[in-house]
Amino acid sequence: MTRDSAGEPGADDGDSVVYDLAPECTADDIEQGLPYLAEINGIVDYGVFVDLSDSVSGLVHESVLEGTYAVGDELVVELESIRENGDMAFEPVDIDEYVTEEVSHDYSLTGTHRLESNLGEQIHVEGEVTQVKQTGGPTIFHVTDENGVVPCAAFEEAGVRAYPTIEVGDIVRVTGMPEHREGSIQIEVDGLSKLDGEDADEARERLDSALEARAEPHDVAPLIDWPAFEKLRPNLEEVAKLLRRTVLDGRPIRVRHHADGDGMCAAVPVQIALERFIADVHEDENAPRHLIKRLPAKAPFYEMEDATRDLNFALEDREKHGQQLPLLLMLDNGSTAEDVPAYETLAHYDIPIVAIDHHHPDPEAVGDLLDAHVNPYLHDEDYRITTGMLCVELARMIYPDLTEELRHIPAVAGLSDRSKADAMDDYVELAAEKGYDENRLQDVSEALDYAAFWLRYNSGDQLIQDLLHLDDDEEARHRDLVSFFADRAREEVDEQLDAAMPHLEHETLDNGAHLYRIDVENYAHRFTYPAPGKTTGEIHDRKIEETGDPVITVGYGPDFAVLRSDGVRLDIPTMVSELEAEIAGGGVSGGGHLVVGSIKFVTGKREEVIDALVEKMAEADIDEALSSAAPIDD
Amino acid sequence: MTRDSAGEPGADDGDSVVYDLAPECTADDIEQGLPYLAEINGIVDYGVFVDLSDSVSGLVHESVLEGTYAVGDELVVELESIRENGDMAFEPVDIDEYVTEEVSHDYSLTGTHRLESNLGEQIHVEGEVTQVKQTGGPTIFHVTDENGVVPCAAFEEAGVRAYPTIEVGDIVRVTGMPEHREGSIQIEVDGLSKLDGEDADEARERLDSALEARAEPHDVAPLIDWPAFEKLRPNLEEVAKLLRRTVLDGRPIRVRHHADGDGMCAAVPVQIALERFIADVHEDENAPRHLIKRLPAKAPFYEMEDATRDLNFALEDREKHGQQLPLLLMLDNGSTAEDVPAYETLAHYDIPIVAIDHHHPDPEAVGDLLDAHVNPYLHDEDYRITTGMLCVELARMIYPDLTEELRHIPAVAGLSDRSKADAMDDYVELAAEKGYDENRLQDVSEALDYAAFWLRYNSGDQLIQDLLHLDDDEEARHRDLVSFFADRAREEVDEQLDAAMPHLEHETLDNGAHLYRIDVENYAHRFTYPAPGKTTGEIHDRKIEETGDPVITVGYGPDFAVLRSDGVRLDIPTMVSELEAEIAGGGVSGGGHLVVGSIKFVTGKREEVIDALVEKMAEADIDEALSSAAPIDD
Amino acid sequence: MTRDSAGEPGADDGDSVVYDLAPECTADDIEQGLPYLAEINGIVDYGVFVDLSDSVSGLVHESVLEGTYAVGDELVVELESIRENGDMAFEPVDIDEYVTEEVSHDYSLTGTHRLESNLGEQIHVEGEVTQVKQTGGPTIFHVTDENGVVPCAAFEEAGVRAYPTIEVGDIVRVTGMPEHREGSIQIEVDGLSKLDGEDADEARERLDSALEARAEPHDVAPLIDWPAFEKLRPNLEEVAKLLRRTVLDGRPIRVRHHADGDGMCAAVPVQIALERFIADVHEDENAPRHLIKRLPAKAPFYEMEDATRDLNFALEDREKHGQQLPLLLMLDNGSTAEDVPAYETLAHYDIPIVAIDHHHPDPEAVGDLLDAHVNPYLHDEDYRITTGMLCVELARMIYPDLTEELRHIPAVAGLSDRSKADAMDDYVELAAEKGYDENRLQDVSEALDYAAFWLRYNSGDQLIQDLLHLDDDEEARHRDLVSFFADRAREEVDEQLDAAMPHLEHETLDNGAHLYRIDVENYAHRFTYPAPGKTTGEIHDRKIEETGDPVITVGYGPDFAVLRSDGVRLDIPTMVSELEAEIAGGGVSGGGHLVVGSIKFVTGKREEVIDALVEKMAEADIDEALSSAAPIDD
Repeated sequence: MTRDSAGEPGADDGDSVVYDLAPECTADDIEQGLPYLAEINGIVDYGVFVDLSDSVSGLVHESVLEGTYAVGDELVVELESIRENGDMAFEPVDIDEYVTEEVSHDYSLTGTHRLESNLGEQIHVEGEVTQVKQTGGPTIFHVTDENGVVPCAAFEEAGVRAYPTIEVGDIVRVTGMPEHREGSIQIEVDGLSKLDGEDADEARERLDSALEARAEPHDVAPLIDWPAFEKLRPNLEEVAKLLRRTVLDGRPIRVRHHADGDGMCAAVPVQIALERFIADVHEDENAPRHLIKRLPAKAPFYEMEDATRDLNFALEDREKHGQQLPLLLMLDNGSTAEDVPAYETLAHYDIPIVAIDHHHPDPEAVGDLLDAHVNPYLHDEDYRITTGMLCVELARMIYPDLTEELRHIPAVAGLSDRSKADAMDDYVELAAEKGYDENRLQDVSEALDYAAFWLRYNSGDQLIQDLLHLDDDEEARHRDLVSFFADRAREEVDEQLDAAMPHLEHETLDNGAHLYRIDVENYAHRFTYPAPGKTTGEIHDRKIEETGDPVITVGYGPDFAVLRSDGVRLDIPTMVSELEAEIAGGGVSGGGHLVVGSIKFVTGKREEVIDALVEKMAEADIDEALSSAAPIDD
Repeated sequence: MTRDSAGEPGADDGDSVVYDLAPECTADDIEQGLPYLAEINGIVDYGVFVDLSDSVSGLVHESVLEGTYAVGDELVVELESIRENGDMAFEPVDIDEYVTEEVSHDYSLTGTHRLESNLGEQIHVEGEVTQVKQTGGPTIFHVTDENGVVPCAAFEEAGVRAYPTIEVGDIVRVTGMPEHREGSIQIEVDGLSKLDGEDADEARERLDSALEARAEPHDVAPLIDWPAFEKLRPNLEEVAKLLRRTVLDGRPIRVRHHADGDGMCAAVPVQIALERFIADVHEDENAPRHLIKRLPAKAPFYEMEDATRDLNFALEDREKHGQQLPLLLMLDNGSTAEDVPAYETLAHYDIPIVAIDHHHPDPEAVGDLLDAHVNPYLHDEDYRITTGMLCVELARMIYPDLTEELRHIPAVAGLSDRSKADAMDDYVELAAEKGYDENRLQDVSEALDYAAFWLRYNSGDQLIQDLLHLDDDEEARHRDLVSFFADRAREEVDEQLDAAMPHLEHETLDNGAHLYRIDVENYAHRFTYPAPGKTTGEIHDRKIEETGDPVITVGYGPDFAVLRSDGVRLDIPTMVSELEAEIAGGGVSGGGHLVVGSIKFVTGKREEVIDALVEKMAEADIDEALSSAAPIDD
Repeated sequence: MTRDSAGEPGADDGDSVVYDLAPECTADDIEQGLPYLAEINGIVDYGVFVDLSDSVSGLVHESVLEGTYAVGDELVVELESIRENGDMAFEPVDIDEYVTEEVSHDYSLTGTHRLESNLGEQIHVEGEVTQVKQTGGPTIFHVTDENGVVPCAAFEEAGVRAYPTIEVGDIVRVTGMPEHREGSIQIEVDGLSKLDGEDADEARERLDSALEARAEPHDVAPLIDWPAFEKLRPNLEEVAKLLRRTVLDGRPIRVRHHADGDGMCAAVPVQIALERFIADVHEDENAPRHLIKRLPAKAPFYEMEDATRDLNFALEDREKHGQQLPLLLMLDNGSTAEDVPAYETLAHYDIPIVAIDHHHPDPEAVGDLLDAHVNPYLHDEDYRITTGMLCVELARMIYPDLTEELRHIPAVAGLSDRSKADAMDDYVELAAEKGYDENRLQDVSEALDYAAFWLRYNSGDQLIQDLLHLDDDEEARHRDLVSFFADRAREEVDEQLDAAMPHLEHETLDNGAHLYRIDVENYAHRFTYPAPGKTTGEIHDRKIEETGDPVITVGYGPDFAVLRSDGVRLDIPTMVSELEAEIAGGGVSGGGHLVVGSIKFVTGKREEVIDALVEKMAEADIDEALSSAAPIDD
């Protein structure tokens, strides 16, 4: 019950207070022992009937009445009794001087977490509309309050939009009955109204601060002590909060990730963490399926083709299901200038973008387009903190119960991207405690890479979870499975290299580096595993082992080349800019960083481009500390 | 109530008429004040009970009876009163000589447009069965009458076909109750019978003439005065009628359109018009989704691959959902000999085909295969009347309420295909009234082209509607969005041309024309925007601007060449025939018209084919009026 | 009724037996004329009420009672009468000395084939759980007994797993009521318990032997007398039994088949036979759709890409729908070492694999990986017994009612793979009886091949059934349809050969054979029908006709060659091994047999590989009996 003093100035000066129920008040708003203003609406032999509000009335028995009364007279009464059938009896209160205080109806809200215990009873919920879906039957308003998101079904006429003025983002008060509906709780709406003005502002503020509080990430201790990681931790916590808030706001999340081992070690834990948090927050049991989607990216950057499709899907979900546009979460991907056109496309819509990546970033290019950007290079760290390592911690911040399940993942992520981080030892040990020796970790890593290749751009949810051992599969079978996939992968790499190695061209550059070139179009199998980038990387690794640093390897096809260097500072972005300027009609573009990169050109200028490139390589500085361990994007 | 005189010869000679209700008559068939033949079926203290039909009986009170009666006696009565509970009282009519006239039950039909006001009452509908869908529960018969199509659910046993002899195309009479079912009205069937013989013929005739009348297109004044367009208008009206009739008949429509700007300006308005008309006609709210599908074509003609898929989908929809086979609507596509194999494939099935196109047609090849063909060339007009211009008028004939929404589309269509029609000024002005200056129109056109490329062969409904501004998006955002897409498109064209232009080969032909050749496989980026056809077109345009007419440009890849001429009469179909005959083993084929075309050949004969082609070009006539403005199909 | 003697030692020594109903017994457990132990639970004027079990009680009338009774007294009674309303009357049995024998409740099982006649009554079913699907509402347990598989819906709470300890493979007893549910019968579960120990073993044994018996294939006489086929018949019967058992066990089946004429003649009949048997076995009317899927293979062997996808789908179906992992049925495919990696992948899961094929097998490679392998070469027969011929018989063993529908299919299959089997005459005659002359059969065969090409890797169910005339399409239309497709196919072959033939290179080898080479990349149209393998085959056939044996034809592209020989013993697998060893960095691999095969290599070594190959061909033995009639896989 809330009371707004109607006669505030006099309320304190000793006059008695008599309460005046607002018309919408119910019996629940009455407190025994307090005086209420009533109006006589009927006179019978045995007493008078009084109204206290539209729905509150009762009898004052003649035995307790004094004097005469007329219909319409005011009377101060207090509650005497309520019978089982709800009939109320009042008795007069003897009071002459009083001030009245209005009592507004107590729309006491039932949090969406208490719906189960209020099934079949009329309750009130207040919150923000996060989705408005018109079905063939009722209109479904998804409403978030401090505790969760609940679908509210309002029926106007079959297929007809109920409450057509209510839109996503409105603050509303819903009156209705919670009920079970196909495995979920929903509220059958009796009434739904939009809060306006101050009411809305207050409610929004209250909701916002509650959601902000609930969005706070869990304060989990990192799996290992690692000073380098600590630098990125505040950033990750911000992202955890943003993602949790996105879930609380009922906004969908679309994950695009690099389709390799580290990319999957990043995306799958975050996907699972978000699915579980969504299941906690949303009463609709289908929410995890509808609100998060993981998709491998077709390229090592966010292509226009992917962006166009993502955008069209998002617009269709908005049109068909009344969903908000999604947040885009780029994982192990998305830090470079190549991502800009796709980002700019989405920037025309209400689609927040977050990137977590350990590839060499171009913060000037992407900075303004990202709502958050986590990347070790932004903190003077490098690729050795892999995206998978970051995302396991992120997943735990979002949903800490996952910790046990994810304990072995950072080691797999690290091996996949051949991280030489000091922390690798700790991660490997952590995995060992769970029964993963280094061979098995390596197997998982190779198996992921191999499966990702054959799944093409299918997310392959179950198979990948099986390979990551994130289901409750038995130990021995998992071991067999990944070693089989890993062995197949290795055999196919061997076959590829059997074909390619004899065609490797070698020269020693002026700066003393070994340069190896391989024509992967003509001397490697096409359209099969391993793809050109990985083929080049494997050749490079063998040559380092054979000859020691410094080594540069170039794998080229009709209109592209992939580059790897150990021990030579190539600075590929600069080389690309120079080649672009120097070779008219070469159509040169590309990306990368000091020792890893790829270049595109028009087929007809291949020789010229590669010759010019090699000249530049011959002049590059030797720097034996430089390693190209991170894999080349295919 | 309908009355068939049973004793016609005597009916006129003064004898009184007594009406004899047929057994199936109900109380509704009785009119107060008329005499009816009744039979006594029971005698009680207070009167006799009489039967007038199987379901009509009542009491004749002893107070109004004279004489004695036995059960089975006939009696002429008239209605005295009906009580609220439905009990009827009759009184005897004193009549000796009479002829009887049979009264058949008045199955007065309730039009499918009056179902909403007859919810829960038994009604009759007569019409043609347009679809028979067996569900896991009832069998759903979609029945069209003069007013619309309504689903009628007949339940025999769950999943068992009700009325198994009733098929699509039968004329039926349905008795049942309209009810709401998931946002739609459907009739719960009590009885369903097929009309035969004359009854069916009459009903079919009546239905047919009503549907013909309803199919009549709206008589809308064209958006602009344009004599050239007037020539095609009767054709378009026929197509509008055919499409409206197709909707009224419940037949699905499959739209295949050229995947470029003009193609989308043609297809999207027609799609929306048909969706709205379907929604008006069909009680089933899912009908628009089930009955029309828009698909970009993979090639600039109707490929066997598309046709095979379309056919298989159609057969599966017939098998699974009892749908009729669709009508195929080809837009901005489908006029040439290259379409024939695909058309002939569909000709083996009941699949009508309509083409609306402004590409140079080969009416001899396709004429017999098309149920309607609208093409400006068939009326001595040309590509300048673009398909988009035609289809906006078509959409308005189908659903005139769209007029305001579509007002800017013809200008976009015209700019997309660089129409030099006189009418362009008027169209541009029309768009200007809606806030579209020429820059913005140009942006929309480029944006469409760019989005279509990246959507590949996805229809991208929402994104395309967004770019065409056919949703209620705000002005400023639309402007930003399309200018962003357009700018990206232009940048990518510039990048492509930066690579390509230095490799352009130039020669001056004997006829004085400039010939430019570009190897788009080796000197342009592959698999990216712009594709080879557009790349060639852009080069051609720059060279015209630079050098003035006459200019020919050839862009060639391993097994194809695209051709553009301004100012030289190439007559490409003739050149293709000659090359095919002259170059054995060249595998030459192709299509096009005077100044735009493409040629295919086997890779190994490329040089020979192109050399021979250039020779022919050198001998071609100069005709400065000829322009290749219409874009080359990629 | 089952009786377990409670006092076995005394049961035989002359004492009377009185039966003691277990508490859960019902009226059905009582037999008239037998004495039962009862307990008095009430005494009234007109007699005493007695309880025989928790739910069995009744009156003993005072007229038949002697002496005095107290509540709680025991009394031996027998059934006197049961009134219509179920009230029972008993009378005392005069018996002094007796042993009691316990009567346990007769959970007499209702076979799943008798559910329809027990709708709405409580029944018991015992069987094995084959699938556990959690819906948003109840949990659906699919239970197989001797007679079929029935879905049993158990409701705990919406979306909550009922009986969480019950898993696929458990033997359970279900008590519940059969009811209709969307076209299917399901049992609404009142109780469900897992049998353990001996009970489970017995039930499992009983079920197993019943299912084994029911799985027995039908003993159908082969369509024609053919001694060669007889050798494979026992094998086929085993497979028929295995597939029928798979259906009875509720395990899904995934069919992967060669995407050509013979492959479809094999796969479609088996698909239809299994669909019909599934429909017979499963009460769930959606079972045929959920439990069998036919997919053309992308390659002539089982690729890792297909296997990875199949596996991921299977895992997702298990996760989402609680399905068992499928059985994989490879048709016209799957016999060679190239299939091994994919098979080994699946071997890590419970996925049985069956292959029926007539391509040259490598039983050592695949033997251990297959649960069954039918191949004529394993019985000294060869490709002339085509997979389609085998599978028509297999389909008939599974579902003999199909015989009439399938009578013309073996002839089509034989023509598709140009089988020179003696039996072809009989098959052709069989088809002729159905109105198929050889031209029409040939048309069907060509039409299938052509449609398969354009359908790409879509299964095209309806179109293929239309071309195979397995629907009830009218004769004349089918004839037109297939002759149209066949003619188109022939025209396109002619066009391809017009381009290719002039570029054919000829030489006469040392062994006297003609060698023809064609560069299908440069001298044939790409990405269109016919593909390189068929193009090569068509050239080869024309050259045999022109020149007579011996002829070898090699069609090569950048990194592959397809080979055909008539009259020369090539032994391709040996040649491939030799080339692989001899040409370092050639990346040679391949498959095939004596006269048909294909080779892959790296593009840059093409010339060297083909030269070496031709040298080997020149040394190969002439053997005029050898024919390459079977088509080369593309």
